[in-house]
Order: sequence, then C-alpha cells, then structure tokens
Amino acid sequence: MVKRALALSQVYRMLEPGPVVLVTTAARGRTNVMPMSWHMMMEFEPPLLGCIVSARNYTFGLLDASGECVINIPTVDLARSVVACGNTSGRKIDKFRAFGLTPVASARVRAPRIEECYASLECAVADAKMVAKYNMFVLKVLKAWSEPSLKQPRTIHHAGRGLFAVPGEWLRLRSKKK
Amino acid sequence: MVKRALALSQVYRMLEPGPVVLVTTAARGRTNVMPMSWHMMMEFEPPLLGCIVSARNYTFGLLDASGECVINIPTVDLARSVVACGNTSGRKIDKFRAFGLTPVASARVRAPRIEECYASLECAVADAKMVAKYNMFVLKVLKAWSEPSLKQPRTIHHAGRGLFAVPGEWLRLRSKKK
Repeated sequence: MVKRALALSQVYRMLEPGPVVLVTTAARGRTNVMPMSWHMMMEFEPPLLGCIVSARNYTFGLLDASGECVINIPTVDLARSVVACGNTSGRKIDKFRAFGLTPVASARVRAPRIEECYASLECAVADAKMVAKYNMFVLKVLKAWSEPSLKQPRTIHHAGRGLFAVPGEWLRLRSKKK
Repeated sequence: MVKRALALSQVYRMLEPGPVVLVTTAARGRTNVMPMSWHMMMEFEPPLLGCIVSARNYTFGLLDASGECVINIPTVDLARSVVACGNTSGRKIDKFRAFGLTPVASARVRAPRIEECYASLECAVADAKMVAKYNMFVLKVLKAWSEPSLKQPRTIHHAGRGLFAVPGEWLRLRSKKK
C-alpha cells in the first residue's frame, strides 16, 4: 500500500463520518492495538479530535503514560481483525502478531502505524483535563498518512452488538461546508 | 412513520457509527435546525454525547440560552434537505418551512423533533465547561425515539466537501462489545 503524507487541513475528512478506528499505543516496552468508535473531530487545523477510552482497557494506561498514539483507519477487509482486537486484551497477547497486523515506525510518535490500514494519524494528547470525569482524551494530529488512490474507502461503522455498516453508495451534493 | 420510545441503553447504537444529524433548538420564541457531524457517544447510560457547535452558528446561541436540543437522525431520502439546512442560516429563514421538515412536540424539551427523521434524541446540556475552549457541549439524552422497523438505516455520513457515504452493506461479526 503506497501512502502519502496528508495535509493536516484534510484530516477531518478521514474521521468526520465516524468509522471504527484502530488505536495503537506504545509505553513501558509494550505496544498495543485497540478498536475505537467513540471519537469526533473537534477542530480543523491543527486537527484536534476527542475520544473516549475506557479506563478498563489496557490502551488507557499506555496512552496515559506515553501521551501519544496513532489513530489507524481500517477498511472492511480488516473487519475480522478489528473485531478480534476488540475481543481480546493486550495485557495477555501481542495483538499485532495474533491478528496479522504489521507495525511500522511512525514519524513523530513512538506508537507504530499499522501497515494494513489505509490511513494513519500520528497524535499527541493535547488535553487530559476531561480524562478523570469522562475518560476523554483530546488528541492533536501531528502527522497524517493516507493511501491517495482510495477516494471512497469502505470503512466500517459499528451499529452495536457486532453489526457493522459499510458504505455502499456515495452522493455528491452542493454543500457550502468544508 | 411510527416511532417507539427507545430504551436509553440502546441510544449508542444510533450514534456510534457517526451519521450526520439534524440538531433542533428553541429559545427566545425561535426554533432552528442545523446539520452536525462532529459528535460522539461518551457514556452508555445515562447516554451522554459530546458535540461541537461553532459559535458562528445561529444554533450555538439557541443551545446556549435554552440548555436543550433534539438530535434528529435523517436517512438518505432527506439528504438534500440536510445539505440545504447547512447552506443557510436560521437567522434569516425558517428552515423547517423552507426545506419541508415538520416540527413535532417533544416530550421532555422545548426544541421540536423532526417528523421525517427516523430517530430523535431529546437532550439537555449536562456540561458546558468545554464550551469556552472547544465549542463542545456534553448532552444527556432524556428521551429517545426511533422507528422500530428500521434495523439497517441508510444514514448519511459526510466525507467532506459535499461527498456523503451511505451504508450499502452490513456485516455481523462475533463481537463481545456492546
């Protein structure tokens, strides 16, 4: 997969429609990967995004300790690996190895990117004030990567209880919005 | 459209996949409706959701003044009305009348529900501490409505610049997650 650096001004296009993402983290000599659906864009540029990471998840401690992560965006061909990552804990297994995901070095953070994902956003925690009350981290995107040929990615969208929707139709309408 | 009250524990299934929603507000004798894509679930039950409303939008003042809104979820048949709502301001026109949206009385808040939307979440602002810095409101869902027959709604997902994705394929995988 050939990925190009993506202008930070275009990051919102990756996340605005709310796909399931894979969060990678690295701290204390360990790396992990976790699927996440509860995230939103908060600012266009520099791109800020909010996300909720349960304190029960192994990722929470790694994110909290390192202050960094990568938000990787998978397409539907990775759906089984995504679900498998959600059904297991990085406390017990190396999910990269177990589910066929390839960690590659990031440019700005220690957490790895996932080679099989069509986009990756290297992030630093910009604001941790909402963590205590809501488990909410505000992330700032430092560097973004995407596969430039993939204009209409078949991302996966969780509708609860293991039901996932995949885009099948695309509309273009005259919107004045970004 | 026959809608039933939806258990608050099921609200996340409406919003987790990140559809464009229509936010209705009422204050100072005015009502308004605005499309919004930057939102996320924050807690299952009571359901909390975070959203970003630009201070430039007419909705911002109505939401801030009333402390209430309804998050209405449209399907693709309303896509043109949704985009039209985003291209205009409630300061100047009555968007319900202009774009064929029918306001109906809510049970718990003064802001109206939209009859043509398949789901509506009546909300109160639960936390406004992130408004000054991020234009972020934390909303608590007080009452939720949905069309029970619509198991695989053709929601619309904004990919930026007027490009919208609509679910066309559904997968069921063995997820241990809610």
